[in-house]
Amino acid sequence: MIAKVTVMNEILEKALLYDFYGELLTAHQKEVYEQFILEDLSLGEIAEMQGISRQGIHDLVKRCQKALEGYESKLHLVERFLSVREKVTEIQDILDECEKEKKDPRDIVKRIRDISDKIIEEL
Amino acid sequence: MIAKVTVMNEILEKALLYDFYGELLTAHQKEVYEQFILEDLSLGEIAEMQGISRQGIHDLVKRCQKALEGYESKLHLVERFLSVREKVTEIQDILDECEKEKKDPRDIVKRIRDISDKIIEEL
Repeated sequence: MIAKVTVMNEILEKALLYDFYGELLTAHQKEVYEQFILEDLSLGEIAEMQGISRQGIHDLVKRCQKALEGYESKLHLVERFLSVREKVTEIQDILDECEKEKKDPRDIVKRIRDISDKIIEEL
Repeated sequence: MIAKVTVMNEILEKALLYDFYGELLTAHQKEVYEQFILEDLSLGEIAEMQGISRQGIHDLVKRCQKALEGYESKLHLVERFLSVREKVTEIQDILDECEKEKKDPRDIVKRIRDISDKIIEEL
């Protein structure tokens, strides 16, 4: 189960990197990388469609991954976004709690303010 | 006054672009661009410090600006961040309103949820 979760996280991470930095790849790189990551085609299938060797596709995909990871290691924008998303989800959890448990909503004002202050600091 | 605001916005915009994409410039470009944008030195002053002609500094700064604007036109990450920041500020305004006007805080739950949903959609 842990292995499955790890694989899923890796796929999500690659998709996120592509979502953020994909536009910095060339049109050809984007086409092949999308077939591999988003359409989940095999190297062999892509090689046949592109008329390149399987090894050529393999190298191209690796180069794309390295480029995307390079952008993230310099810019950390995926990291910043994930951190903001986590905090907004915390705000939503507090709202859920407030609605379901019929708590005094005044308590939530301070908690939401603390989280939103942290988000602003990061942006 | 409008002219002053426009100039200030242009400086802020350049600083934001540099904050997001500056790490993609070379070390030398970064050094010169920081002297120009963040330290607010003149082209002549930078030229003297760097031992390059004023025209050389001018061209380098223009190239940096073009590169940073090119990243934003492809990735739109500054735009995404500004939009999220605007929405988090809206949440904080609602909290202020709630505290100052002693409104029933239950009213705010729905409004904050709507805004936080929109933020999540954008991230």
